[in-house]
Amino acid sequence: KMLITVLCTVLFMGALPSLAEVSQGHISVVLLGATGDLAKKYLWQGLFQLYMDQVSSGHSFTFHGAALTALEPGQRLIFDVLKKLACPPDESPNRCAVLKDQFLKLSQYHQLKTAENYAVLNREIETLLRQEGLKEAGRIFYFSVPPFAYTDIARHINSSCRPPPGAWLRVVLEKPFGHDLESAQQLAAELTSFFREEEMYRVDHYLGKQAVAHILPFRDQNRQFLDPIWNRHHVERVEIVLKETVDAKGRTSFYEQYGVIRDVLQNHLTEALMFLTMELPANVSSAKEILQCKLQAFQSLRGLEKNSAVLGQYQAYASQVQEELQKAQDYISTTPTFAGVLIHSDNLRWEGVPFLLTSGKALDERVGYVRVLFKNRAYCTQSETLRDAAHSQCKAKQIIFYIGHGALNTPAVLVSRNLFRPVMPEGSWREAVGQSDLHIFGQPLSDYYVYSPVKERDAYSVLISNIYHGRKDFFITAENLLASWGFWTPLLDSISHQPLRLYPGGVENQHLLDFEMVSGELAFTLAEPVELLNPNRLMPSDYRTIQSKFRQSPLVSAWSEDLISQLAFDIEKTASRTVAHSGQFHLALSGGSSPVILFQRLARHHYAFPWKYTHIWLVDERCVPLTDTESNFFSLHNHLLQSVRVPYFNVHPMPVHLNQRLCVEEDRGTELYAKEIMALVANASFDLVLLGVGTDGHTASLFPQSENGLEGAQTVVLTESPVKPHQRMSLSLPLINRAREVFVLVLGKGKHDITTLLSRVGHEPRKWPISGVSPSSGQLVWYVDYEALLG
Amino acid sequence: KMLITVLCTVLFMGALPSLAEVSQGHISVVLLGATGDLAKKYLWQGLFQLYMDQVSSGHSFTFHGAALTALEPGQRLIFDVLKKLACPPDESPNRCAVLKDQFLKLSQYHQLKTAENYAVLNREIETLLRQEGLKEAGRIFYFSVPPFAYTDIARHINSSCRPPPGAWLRVVLEKPFGHDLESAQQLAAELTSFFREEEMYRVDHYLGKQAVAHILPFRDQNRQFLDPIWNRHHVERVEIVLKETVDAKGRTSFYEQYGVIRDVLQNHLTEALMFLTMELPANVSSAKEILQCKLQAFQSLRGLEKNSAVLGQYQAYASQVQEELQKAQDYISTTPTFAGVLIHSDNLRWEGVPFLLTSGKALDERVGYVRVLFKNRAYCTQSETLRDAAHSQCKAKQIIFYIGHGALNTPAVLVSRNLFRPVMPEGSWREAVGQSDLHIFGQPLSDYYVYSPVKERDAYSVLISNIYHGRKDFFITAENLLASWGFWTPLLDSISHQPLRLYPGGVENQHLLDFEMVSGELAFTLAEPVELLNPNRLMPSDYRTIQSKFRQSPLVSAWSEDLISQLAFDIEKTASRTVAHSGQFHLALSGGSSPVILFQRLARHHYAFPWKYTHIWLVDERCVPLTDTESNFFSLHNHLLQSVRVPYFNVHPMPVHLNQRLCVEEDRGTELYAKEIMALVANASFDLVLLGVGTDGHTASLFPQSENGLEGAQTVVLTESPVKPHQRMSLSLPLINRAREVFVLVLGKGKHDITTLLSRVGHEPRKWPISGVSPSSGQLVWYVDYEALLG
Repeated sequence: KMLITVLCTVLFMGALPSLAEVSQGHISVVLLGATGDLAKKYLWQGLFQLYMDQVSSGHSFTFHGAALTALEPGQRLIFDVLKKLACPPDESPNRCAVLKDQFLKLSQYHQLKTAENYAVLNREIETLLRQEGLKEAGRIFYFSVPPFAYTDIARHINSSCRPPPGAWLRVVLEKPFGHDLESAQQLAAELTSFFREEEMYRVDHYLGKQAVAHILPFRDQNRQFLDPIWNRHHVERVEIVLKETVDAKGRTSFYEQYGVIRDVLQNHLTEALMFLTMELPANVSSAKEILQCKLQAFQSLRGLEKNSAVLGQYQAYASQVQEELQKAQDYISTTPTFAGVLIHSDNLRWEGVPFLLTSGKALDERVGYVRVLFKNRAYCTQSETLRDAAHSQCKAKQIIFYIGHGALNTPAVLVSRNLFRPVMPEGSWREAVGQSDLHIFGQPLSDYYVYSPVKERDAYSVLISNIYHGRKDFFITAENLLASWGFWTPLLDSISHQPLRLYPGGVENQHLLDFEMVSGELAFTLAEPVELLNPNRLMPSDYRTIQSKFRQSPLVSAWSEDLISQLAFDIEKTASRTVAHSGQFHLALSGGSSPVILFQRLARHHYAFPWKYTHIWLVDERCVPLTDTESNFFSLHNHLLQSVRVPYFNVHPMPVHLNQRLCVEEDRGTELYAKEIMALVANASFDLVLLGVGTDGHTASLFPQSENGLEGAQTVVLTESPVKPHQRMSLSLPLINRAREVFVLVLGKGKHDITTLLSRVGHEPRKWPISGVSPSSGQLVWYVDYEALLG
Repeated sequence: KMLITVLCTVLFMGALPSLAEVSQGHISVVLLGATGDLAKKYLWQGLFQLYMDQVSSGHSFTFHGAALTALEPGQRLIFDVLKKLACPPDESPNRCAVLKDQFLKLSQYHQLKTAENYAVLNREIETLLRQEGLKEAGRIFYFSVPPFAYTDIARHINSSCRPPPGAWLRVVLEKPFGHDLESAQQLAAELTSFFREEEMYRVDHYLGKQAVAHILPFRDQNRQFLDPIWNRHHVERVEIVLKETVDAKGRTSFYEQYGVIRDVLQNHLTEALMFLTMELPANVSSAKEILQCKLQAFQSLRGLEKNSAVLGQYQAYASQVQEELQKAQDYISTTPTFAGVLIHSDNLRWEGVPFLLTSGKALDERVGYVRVLFKNRAYCTQSETLRDAAHSQCKAKQIIFYIGHGALNTPAVLVSRNLFRPVMPEGSWREAVGQSDLHIFGQPLSDYYVYSPVKERDAYSVLISNIYHGRKDFFITAENLLASWGFWTPLLDSISHQPLRLYPGGVENQHLLDFEMVSGELAFTLAEPVELLNPNRLMPSDYRTIQSKFRQSPLVSAWSEDLISQLAFDIEKTASRTVAHSGQFHLALSGGSSPVILFQRLARHHYAFPWKYTHIWLVDERCVPLTDTESNFFSLHNHLLQSVRVPYFNVHPMPVHLNQRLCVEEDRGTELYAKEIMALVANASFDLVLLGVGTDGHTASLFPQSENGLEGAQTVVLTESPVKPHQRMSLSLPLINRAREVFVLVLGKGKHDITTLLSRVGHEPRKWPISGVSPSSGQLVWYVDYEALLG
């Protein structure tokens, strides 16, 4: 208590000789949440490191710990932390003592609770500066507080604690930055009303991990080696992994709301992913260029689906939650503590390369790494036993950014010796030797060039130094953050009902959490050996697709994803059978949003589809150019055709844009299309027609009361839609009814009313065109999801 | 000598009691070349084995050894062989002695040289049969003679030695079956004039190797496991390997004419390749179904190019050839004794999977195997050191048909235990145990299910048994043979000037013969460490592409393959630059045969080409439907578009087929195309136009004296070709001359005269349309190969 009083007194007596001598100006660092865990464990030490590093930089400093705690207990808490601060081992004990003493004198505690508290803090800083005759360089506010407190604090800082013009303000924010895209957007919008984007430093402390921070510089400095191989032709797979041995005990109040994907994958692992996949900017330390390239990389990511992930929960978690959150014994948590996620980037560079992101608690070891495994393209003619192993090109080729812990127990960069000797910055990384008996990823350490940091630095020290230097490239911008949430939120939504695999924790897990890629999806390798953790509601996967009847025709029903899978499977089966029988398959597809998911599924999961022998026809088209985003064909092309190999000749878009004009009758587009059908489709009888249903009962582009197409000739017609674009081209009902198979896909709650109606009405095509679908000699099958069927 | 006399006497005395008792009829086996190496080493033993196996089958046998050698020395030679015949170890010594004695009595020697000799043989057989009262079942003639002797022998057999109606004739032929496609066709045609296809049994003794013979049955019996994984999505690579330690010493007179590709790859390894890649017929023992599937598989193989192979020659080979063939000291052999070849099958099942065929003499070990390595799609969450290795899905997954020798020293089928437990026929294969310390392909033997034959059988015994049983599925049909030569001959032609890597032989080779796949081609991994074995002529690769001037414009010249590489590279460079600058690239391509190689090169080697932003236009088109094989667009589609991802909207075939008719003026196809160009190509100025030159000086479809297109409007025109199909559509010269770049590709000796002419004449487009190509503000570059340039 004595010392704290002294400290405060001294400060206000202006008795710190060093303050007045400097010329670069004064920096005030305010640590909010100064008595919390993170502050105690990392942040104060990071601030002390900053002071040690920058004491001769020309800046002067004061450090203000702040919290809600009252002054006196707060001071005591802070003092307890400060006295434990340590110097790096290479610092002389004398200098360390002097520096520590100075740092203590420059640090003080504030209670920051009310608007008045903030105003007082501001006045104190101003007074000090005036008394000492110091110019103000800037203020750093470090938010080490729960996110619900952000807005209040931000408001106070903005209204009472901004530095005067000419000095900068930097506010440092810690995750979580929201819970999903919407909440993140909301938080971002709130903060934007108080701070400018360049004032905000969003911390992802992974960007302070030395191995992660070196990914971009490594790619830059080794362009000559990486340029030819940093692509899908050479990279076999990438693993981005953070395994923990600890569990969530004591933190379940936080963890239960977030889970492993929000806690680790959305931020840390995604940032590492971006560093790997983004195009390399010309200047790798330009925050602006990095951001641009990152955002582009985000855009290339293929959307995640339910089956992109495998999820687990360690067995003790449930009881920990029940205990810590005072839940009932039958409370079931659906929060995953383990996740493996398969990510694809659909650009030219990375298409087809699997990026596996994995993290979990209660695993067998603590380790973090980013591993790039290259394809092995060598054949070694000499037999294994007779060859000189040292120079073999047949060994695995990999680059590993070893984040820490694990067998190596140090950050490191490893490059297989049969790949290349990397260029590393001499001052900060050095070649490591020894421990030759160690095996890393199946190979002895001697198979790698191994580099470790000259000076191992804690992530927070690195980040605090970067804040001081204004290196925004080490922080997460709002755009970056929202892009990441935009990417992860659909998965988070779709897995909220997914079953979790229970695992015992630790070494006992054995192969229980091993997983495999199967046609672009992930699945646990071992069949479920223990009970599934089913939440208290029905699971989509508990249902098999249900077969029964709808309007006297077969009905397939399931949750939408399962329904689409079944439909895609059935289409492929029909296609294969038809091609085997007649050598070709004529498939007529509808536009609209429902088929898009089907198209994607066909493109991504049906590798054996006989595309080469398939003719693609349109059921209907909007009268817009084919390259217009409104065009049915454009959507079909985007989601299906560009990914599969249908011969050019087999693709038959509707001729809605002849002679540079849209659906003009005298251009005879309908006649042209009908002729094409007659010429190529035997008997004008499509092998399969896929239809949808509108809420008004329309199908194809045949609307209620349409003058054309509902009866009469088996032909192609121009029609009018009640919604824009009004002009349409469509197959007529009689032509559709010649098909061998007609599948009708109905998805979503919005279709419940029309579905219910259709289950009751008879054949009334003028009122509800879909009711006129009734293949004369073919089969009709309804694919209706539970939401449409059951509401 | 005594015994042989006895043997012959006995035969003609009809004193063999067993002969008359049988009812299935008599079989005469005539072994031609009965005193040769192959006969001595394998065939007599094979015939004895046949006798042992079939002595109770109901057939009676006589065995006739024949050669050019006179009767007495021939008899002596044969006797020396026969007395060394051995029974299998499980045969009782008594029965063995009896059987051997019987076999000796049933065997005799004939000198077969003249037509009369054959007639005598025939009479002897007839006499015997009559005397013994035997029905004739059939005759087997085994040709163990050099191929130059085939025709004469075949003629004699056909005219004098055919069995009577009702009995079959089987002639057994040994490779080499020709030297290339042409010689094989010739040999096949000659033989066809003497024998029906079903009478001919062409031996590839690899089909008698138990592990090779079991590939198809294995695929059939394990369909349930293999169906989902026997494809490009699961198979990483396939290696088909036959390594020998011996060299060609003593056989160079044969070897120098053939080399390793003709000796081993064209036949043995190709057959194994077919068994792997062919679709599985419903009935895997139907020779007809197998042949159909095989021929289909051959059709799917991607054509080989010079760089599909790496070639070597062991150092001692040259002196062995000089000595054995009495060549001068400066004689240089270009015969490869080592080859690695990369093969791709371009069907849906195998597209992209590398099949590596490797064989060589004077290597480090003797071994043969077919290895199918599967992709590893698993991620093991547990760390290596902490997991139970026995059940890991992270280990390599492979299926190996181990042909023989090597570390295992027995034929075997190996399947990784983490793949599946295979179904194996119990009678003929049994699970092998023991030798757990052995490592096979990087894994302990205990990682595999290992099966070896219950009874190890020599390949020739198996084949002779198959001949007896008429199992034509174990033999090479003429169609099969010609398909194989058709596949290999282009490579053999193109590598005749390829440099060979010299290797010391044996274990000394170390990594010298290791090779790698690089963008679809093969290359030795190590840079050339020793002298290249350059034949005495200039090598294409000795030339860099030569840059100079032709008709005042830049000229690039090289051997055709190098020229095409350079051209493809330059086109990609232009494309990338243009896309970077203006976001799209308008490329107009010509038809004809020269560009085909370019198209293939672009499709297979230019992965970074910005296809997504490229528009493809046609320079000219024949007035045929687009799906006609004569169509320029069809060829472009076949060789380029179907392999790359140009958006549908960016592909612009010429509208030569409007309203179901071809190039009718009133359909205004030319106007339509011109409008499309105006609408999409800025300033109607293509970014790059690729042209060719005809021997008459035509370019695009602009022929000498053409009424349209040589001058006047910058448009699209209908023209007349002097050759069929006469009607053409073409860009006009003035439109071509608006392009930013025009590349003219001229290939082959046939273009030498026009090239020479063009180097002298000025601007005379009416005489030589190509001379009118002169971009008004763009650049013209000539790509002329040495053959066209230098004749």
